[in-house]
Amino acid sequence: MRGFVNLIAALGVAATSAAAVAGEMSYPQGFRQWGHVKSMVLKPGHPLYDAVGGMHHIYANPKAMQGYKSGRFADGSVIVFDLFEAVDKDNAVSEGKRKAVVVMARNARAYKANDGWGYEVFDAQTRKGSLDAKAQADCHACHRSQQEKDFVFSAIRD
Amino acid sequence: MRGFVNLIAALGVAATSAAAVAGEMSYPQGFRQWGHVKSMVLKPGHPLYDAVGGMHHIYANPKAMQGYKSGRFADGSVIVFDLFEAVDKDNAVSEGKRKAVVVMARNARAYKANDGWGYEVFDAQTRKGSLDAKAQADCHACHRSQQEKDFVFSAIRD
Repeated sequence: MRGFVNLIAALGVAATSAAAVAGEMSYPQGFRQWGHVKSMVLKPGHPLYDAVGGMHHIYANPKAMQGYKSGRFADGSVIVFDLFEAVDKDNAVSEGKRKAVVVMARNARAYKANDGWGYEVFDAQTRKGSLDAKAQADCHACHRSQQEKDFVFSAIRD
Repeated sequence: MRGFVNLIAALGVAATSAAAVAGEMSYPQGFRQWGHVKSMVLKPGHPLYDAVGGMHHIYANPKAMQGYKSGRFADGSVIVFDLFEAVDKDNAVSEGKRKAVVVMARNARAYKANDGWGYEVFDAQTRKGSLDAKAQADCHACHRSQQEKDFVFSAIRD
């Protein structure tokens, strides 16, 4: 959960800055057909609700899926945090509107400053990214706590 | 939601009968790498909580994924309803232990009586199925309401 602390900062930046950065990332086309890693619902009252509240699903492309298994993510690994409004009605929680598509992608050369991980938050409608270099560094500052897992918080299950 | 009414009946049967039926289905190996269709959480107080309460994910193999898009599910289409306990703690809902793996699979010949759809509920630990012919017919009695969607309740989103 501490991994989201800097995601809050990142989303805050996203709202106030449209500056693109060098090594900018493209929208992860086709990620809905990638492997599904896990899902979670953050409800009102959760400390991260304002930033990433709702239902999210984590998807991984084939290289990232290998990374979850081996513990090392090769260049080209992409992990998507697909965030939706959580519609809580009649004791059922369903997916509402997509809120954002948050991505981390491995490229040792392009993202050298952050141990080879690039971070981006894409607008759900325009599919445009918005993180500047500082926001990306903020993401990684927290992910650094997961160095023994190659900087990735989530884990795959059977 | 009405699609689960007979799933309740089916799960009830599963608890009391170990009778295998002709055309029996095998456990859907590798379904965690299939396409993720959607997810939902059924909470305490939901009328279906006793039967299928918790967090579920729906997965579709490539043929079934085509079926969602075309509206017609070809033989070999398999759809999995992967059911977990929902751990609701500190305003976050996470996946707990797997409760069951519920499957519908298309085979016009094997499952002729139910418009070509076979149904099965696999135990999460033993991976053994438990539905008899009556329970399968009960499943389909409710799915029949979705005839215009080729008997499938769920729908794919972008």
